Amino acid sequence: MSVRTKETCNKHIIPVRDALEVLGGRWKLQLLIHLSFGPRRFSQLAKELSPITDRTLSRELKSLEANKVITRTEYDAFPPVVEYKITPHGESLFAVISELGNWGRAHRKLIMDK
Amino acid sequence: MSVRTKETCNKHIIPVRDALEVLGGRWKLQLLIHLSFGPRRFSQLAKELSPITDRTLSRELKSLEANKVITRTEYDAFPPVVEYKITPHGESLFAVISELGNWGRAHRKLIMDK
Repeated sequence: MSVRTKETCNKHIIPVRDALEVLGGRWKLQLLIHLSFGPRRFSQLAKELSPITDRTLSRELKSLEANKVITRTEYDAFPPVVEYKITPHGESLFAVISELGNWGRAHRKLIMDK
Repeated sequence: MSVRTKETCNKHIIPVRDALEVLGGRWKLQLLIHLSFGPRRFSQLAKELSPITDRTLSRELKSLEANKVITRTEYDAFPPVVEYKITPHGESLFAVISELGNWGRAHRKLIMDK
């Protein structure tokens, strides 16, 4: 059995926890999947993800933007138009999301076959 | 752009959310990584994951057991010995965990290179 110290464990745990933090919570994952279909405006996202509140949507978008997973672009129009778009870094999450999805499907099958 | 309905989005989201639920929270991931090094007793896990409380450890182990990711075996000894071990279903999570880890490392690098 390989030598296991708190350090070796933490070396594994910290990056995984970083990723789970970006993905975690009820709405971030849904936002990423909706944005994977193309850029969206705030009002479109609010409608598609109802019953999300504007306040929560704004907070989740800010968090995804701070994590460089999406960009926010303001267009010079009246009324002003704001568009959200997924970044290449955000798209690199899809390999993880699809692995999670595969495991989730197998898990649901195993649990249902009780 | 492919046709996107709430149904197609949910089809992606639900299995991913199932997986995140099994992995989510502060301790489950650490427990899995510690158990990946081999079977452990409750007292060993309590020591290795300090400052976790016995109550929290017991709850998290029950949740992992209910999700068939670990097994709990009682040995007929005095005092009674209880051992926790990861299942093949639990081991199948490691592909997901390593993808999350890879993404987390790249993420930390990107965010730090501000």
